[in-house]
Amino acid sequence: MSLVVIGTVAFDALETPFGKADKIVGGAATYAGLAASYFYDKVNIVAVVGDDFPESEIKDLNDHGVNTEGLQVKKGEKSFFWSGRYHNDMNTRDTLITELNVLANFDPVIPESYQNCEYLMLGNLTPQIQQTVIRRLRNRPKLIVMDTMNFWMNIALDDLLETIKMVDVLTINDEEARQLSGEYSLVKAARKILAMGPKYLVIKKGEHGALLFDETNVFATPALPLADVFDPTGAGDTFAGGFIGHLARVGTVNFNNMKNALIYGSALASFCVEKFGTERIKNLTQQEISDRIQQFVGLSRFDI
Amino acid sequence: MSLVVIGTVAFDALETPFGKADKIVGGAATYAGLAASYFYDKVNIVAVVGDDFPESEIKDLNDHGVNTEGLQVKKGEKSFFWSGRYHNDMNTRDTLITELNVLANFDPVIPESYQNCEYLMLGNLTPQIQQTVIRRLRNRPKLIVMDTMNFWMNIALDDLLETIKMVDVLTINDEEARQLSGEYSLVKAARKILAMGPKYLVIKKGEHGALLFDETNVFATPALPLADVFDPTGAGDTFAGGFIGHLARVGTVNFNNMKNALIYGSALASFCVEKFGTERIKNLTQQEISDRIQQFVGLSRFDI
Repeated sequence: MSLVVIGTVAFDALETPFGKADKIVGGAATYAGLAASYFYDKVNIVAVVGDDFPESEIKDLNDHGVNTEGLQVKKGEKSFFWSGRYHNDMNTRDTLITELNVLANFDPVIPESYQNCEYLMLGNLTPQIQQTVIRRLRNRPKLIVMDTMNFWMNIALDDLLETIKMVDVLTINDEEARQLSGEYSLVKAARKILAMGPKYLVIKKGEHGALLFDETNVFATPALPLADVFDPTGAGDTFAGGFIGHLARVGTVNFNNMKNALIYGSALASFCVEKFGTERIKNLTQQEISDRIQQFVGLSRFDI
Repeated sequence: MSLVVIGTVAFDALETPFGKADKIVGGAATYAGLAASYFYDKVNIVAVVGDDFPESEIKDLNDHGVNTEGLQVKKGEKSFFWSGRYHNDMNTRDTLITELNVLANFDPVIPESYQNCEYLMLGNLTPQIQQTVIRRLRNRPKLIVMDTMNFWMNIALDDLLETIKMVDVLTINDEEARQLSGEYSLVKAARKILAMGPKYLVIKKGEHGALLFDETNVFATPALPLADVFDPTGAGDTFAGGFIGHLARVGTVNFNNMKNALIYGSALASFCVEKFGTERIKNLTQQEISDRIQQFVGLSRFDI
């Protein structure tokens, strides 16, 4: 029994209205792995870095209980690097630099100890690599969650659709749901996307919260209104990690548990944006998380 | 004990991606009065129309239990007319025509039977007229709710600020909250706006739901995800009417009752957008409303 997380482990350079971070550790698998580690103790990462990636950062992951046996370190190569600048609204950003580096030829290796994992989180990455990971697992996991983005809809739609067919939960944002379905109404978008294969769809709406759909049910969670959002980078990955981490912890996949997973994911994402990069979600206590969950309860509970 | 609603009673011409309505009855007081009438049986309207306004429409209001003693009918004059076209996203619209007509010299008359009302809904109108109504009531109502819009922030900010000081609850949308406060974060915006006078602030976010703030608490309700939104006109007024109508019904103003009022207002607004103009909210049953409330419960309830 374990949870496998695949995604990038990388360097980011960020500019937000609140400041600048030159070269900090980021990547979907970093955020998702850290987030999941607060709920579940068997988190395994599949990713690739160059030998420019600091060992201390790998140790940080291990200290959170994240197994990095599946993290390849490529000698003489450089880690994936992304640089972006956020606009004043913090909801939109420009990509300044994308250097694929080790990612260009990433061939994911699944260590023997990862086989028979029950939970698989496919962090944002080329859909083909996401699919390769599913195929390299001898037994299909009980639950496969896939995160993706508009970029792959633009340049690799066929691969994307093929991979979507193979997963149980798709997590995308509202604009991406509209793009993928060709429907403006999120209800209609959800119907079309669920017909593509997944049993569940999570639509992330940033400061407006998130929606969960299955064939017959819908659930909505607000985001925690925050006075300051310092850096939204990784919030979606953190959400996904918290989401699947909670499901792995409870061990049963159903709509009710998924509702709570949405709350846990949202709570962790609300921490993520409070500081630059992984700074905040590297340093959480269980007490902080449980206090934040209570804030979500207070935020959305009514008695009619 | 009664609820007084002031606002426009008017004609609208609408174009949405789903169709066109040439000249139908609209206006803030129409929508809010109808909405409130489902929860409370002493709803009194203060408004003005020309003699072009159909008596049958006034009778429709009366049939819903809405008292129109305070509705002035101006001989030889025309009713307020607004015409607009919605964009494909249904969230933005262009105003095509605004003919003030009777509204240009609207001097609100408060019938003696309206005096001693406990609840006052100031529907969207010039802030000066809203203020006049407060001053013409001999006793200050227990609860004054004020709806307004960016238009008055642009052309009558001083009057608006003076009126805001006198009310208990302000309802505006997210962009308006940002404009009024000069803060992008809605948490900071709320702090600044609450410092302007009101004890409560409701921020309407359309398809993303609504937020309720007081000095120490925040509550968020999602909007019901809908497959089709035919016409958003009047949704905000309907929300406000349902909101204050519920509070008048329960008779006690506190944060908990206001949370439920937010749900009732949202439920009525979700009906409003299903058809053109007032068509849907003129023809609701208590069973439909209570089913819709249950949908909101299902939409947002989780058990952690």
